[in-house]
Amino acid sequence: MDRKNWTLNSTETPPTKEFLDEVRSDDATWILTSAFIIFTMQAGFGLLESGMVSRKNEASIMVKNAVDVIYGGLAYWLFGFALSFGVSEQGNAFCGLGNFMTDADESDMGQVFSKYFFQLSFATTATTIVSGAMAERTNLKAYTLYSFINTLTYSFPAHWIWDDNGWLRKMGAVDIAGCGAVHLVGGVSGLVATLMLKPRTGRFDANSPRKEMASPTNVLLGTFMLWWGWLGFNCGSTFGISGMKWKLASRAAVVTINGSVGGGILGMIYSYICFKNKLNIPIFVTGILAGSSA
Amino acid sequence: MDRKNWTLNSTETPPTKEFLDEVRSDDATWILTSAFIIFTMQAGFGLLESGMVSRKNEASIMVKNAVDVIYGGLAYWLFGFALSFGVSEQGNAFCGLGNFMTDADESDMGQVFSKYFFQLSFATTATTIVSGAMAERTNLKAYTLYSFINTLTYSFPAHWIWDDNGWLRKMGAVDIAGCGAVHLVGGVSGLVATLMLKPRTGRFDANSPRKEMASPTNVLLGTFMLWWGWLGFNCGSTFGISGMKWKLASRAAVVTINGSVGGGILGMIYSYICFKNKLNIPIFVTGILAGSSA
Amino acid sequence: MDRKNWTLNSTETPPTKEFLDEVRSDDATWILTSAFIIFTMQAGFGLLESGMVSRKNEASIMVKNAVDVIYGGLAYWLFGFALSFGVSEQGNAFCGLGNFMTDADESDMGQVFSKYFFQLSFATTATTIVSGAMAERTNLKAYTLYSFINTLTYSFPAHWIWDDNGWLRKMGAVDIAGCGAVHLVGGVSGLVATLMLKPRTGRFDANSPRKEMASPTNVLLGTFMLWWGWLGFNCGSTFGISGMKWKLASRAAVVTINGSVGGGILGMIYSYICFKNKLNIPIFVTGILAGSSA
Repeated sequence: MDRKNWTLNSTETPPTKEFLDEVRSDDATWILTSAFIIFTMQAGFGLLESGMVSRKNEASIMVKNAVDVIYGGLAYWLFGFALSFGVSEQGNAFCGLGNFMTDADESDMGQVFSKYFFQLSFATTATTIVSGAMAERTNLKAYTLYSFINTLTYSFPAHWIWDDNGWLRKMGAVDIAGCGAVHLVGGVSGLVATLMLKPRTGRFDANSPRKEMASPTNVLLGTFMLWWGWLGFNCGSTFGISGMKWKLASRAAVVTINGSVGGGILGMIYSYICFKNKLNIPIFVTGILAGSSA
Repeated sequence: MDRKNWTLNSTETPPTKEFLDEVRSDDATWILTSAFIIFTMQAGFGLLESGMVSRKNEASIMVKNAVDVIYGGLAYWLFGFALSFGVSEQGNAFCGLGNFMTDADESDMGQVFSKYFFQLSFATTATTIVSGAMAERTNLKAYTLYSFINTLTYSFPAHWIWDDNGWLRKMGAVDIAGCGAVHLVGGVSGLVATLMLKPRTGRFDANSPRKEMASPTNVLLGTFMLWWGWLGFNCGSTFGISGMKWKLASRAAVVTINGSVGGGILGMIYSYICFKNKLNIPIFVTGILAGSSA
Repeated sequence: MDRKNWTLNSTETPPTKEFLDEVRSDDATWILTSAFIIFTMQAGFGLLESGMVSRKNEASIMVKNAVDVIYGGLAYWLFGFALSFGVSEQGNAFCGLGNFMTDADESDMGQVFSKYFFQLSFATTATTIVSGAMAERTNLKAYTLYSFINTLTYSFPAHWIWDDNGWLRKMGAVDIAGCGAVHLVGGVSGLVATLMLKPRTGRFDANSPRKEMASPTNVLLGTFMLWWGWLGFNCGSTFGISGMKWKLASRAAVVTINGSVGGGILGMIYSYICFKNKLNIPIFVTGILAGSSA
């Protein structure tokens, strides 16, 4: 969504921090429910990826998506939330400071914990996006380290665009549902990982027999879970439901579905053209997911 | 639920359109969350069906349930919502008009998009109900066409019963959670499809060996997903939570679970009687699902 | 959460029944959504367990988790809710009475049904926790009987700690998310069942070959579903979102995730030490789940 739509009242200033941060009890219902939904995306990515790899690596992919939450959760609690949204006065345009080992007392725990929990769901998603790009080519210990570090990597751009002090925010940039901080960061990390790790063994080797997917059923099940996850992700990004936010959340829901309609149709057409009139499942689901997340 | 219960205040008029359409921010939380849940039923139906067919058709069933959302979504956006709830003055007792290629401006986008999104979740469910009846006997291109067309088929009865102008509505008929517009339409479509397609190869052939289900585990997992889906479906049909609606939603939740209790017990008893004292999984889950959806 | 945190305003009395029972429409959104999520834990436990047993018992475990809802639902509707929260004056410190075959009229149906539905989700969870301890060693009819009876067993401690008249409640005990009534009851039932049923055939027999898990992928998928289930369980236990409850729900979300972070790391370290530097999936997921439920 662009800035003009967001502000809705045709005022020309971007939404203030106060506006975004003011949370009421009915906002909390929306924020927490959305974050719960976003956490299910770990399972969705896990199934999507584990269904595509060879059968012997199925379970290890699922484990890695659990590791994303565990070590990403550790990193975000220790450092990440502070780097993104720390409120200490030493915070600057590049990173926040303060709120390390995030805690809160009774006066501000609602604001802090609802924001922390929602932002954590974004942070772990940014990490898990990369797990597919590294599938079948990383051992678990290396991946564990990666999960920890990538969560910190994410915390900086999240500060730039979402914190009051962030330099991108100050320039007037608006990123409602993480197309920059989550998708671009995840995409670039995935590209770097792919360049370093090279393709999967035999993936583009014309002589080796094409490996079978472990479970096309799980690929589709994972796609459905991510589909619903993007609804939580995009609609929950209003960070509340009161005031006019429910109108934006409703629109985001329709746009998400319509995006997946377009992406799915395109994926299907592309499949029929390039794969001898047959549906290629990975192309098809990539179309759906690219459309719904965009 | 019958009309008397719905009105709750023992007034004898059916709920007015204004009553049903007035949406507040806390209603939107309920409407959108319910619709998210209803969309997961596509995955539930997919697993239920793909687990029951032979292994080679597992993935194609899942694809078809994705197609339901994609081409059903296209049809509903282009025509369906207009035929059901279009507000143009040319609308009549048989169909609505206006709102083709559904869009809204800032003044009404909350009302339009929340209603559109919720109704779309119903429309795609009406279509996906049929996918099981056609399992293993339709190619993907035919099914894609079917998905598009069935969504339009559904849009007419939905107008009759849920739009102010609908002829059934004007006669005083009330259908809260789609027993007519969704289940009857889906059921009749499925029956027509079955009559046209004939049974699955070998399904009722005493000479051919009984085919094994691809995955009984997935049949049950799909059942669980649909179970939770019916909770969203039946309770979300209050189309809001404010005023007295939360009371009806709470009752709908209890009735849904109690329905599945009765259906599951009946399915189990029927299994034991007709299948030599053994539990027949398809009969059992059909009992649960018929009970919870009814 | 301890009593001091719950009361929040540093008054020293435990929360009154009125405080806990007063439900508004936005509370209902939270209560019902949480209960929906809690019901998905049946599928989560089902997958976790069915993935761990031998392949031939996969589906029967899933069936047993469905039986938990069906026969647990029957028992809770007939007797359980009455024993826990019946409002008849004959109720005492040991059990409630009244509200057998739970029903309500229009004046109180919101309060009664939202509470019934939420409590039912707890009751069936207490039962399903035990299904894993009995895996592969009970026939379906015996398990069906167990499901019915264990739901009644659970109803007594639930009364002691959560009803105004309960003797533990009167002594000032507070149990927000069921660590006593659900986990302790489920754990003790499971221990009794294990002692009666003995280990699974060959489970601790050094001579018999170690049986393969039916599906490690499903073990992880079940873990993800339970993970999200605990979020609904722990956060939904505020039984509402209005007033200060949303603050406690937000904190519960963070504590749940941080608990699973700690449990997962511990499970991983324990695996590496005790299983020759390899990750043992059952140990790992037990760590995650013990951490998030605690």
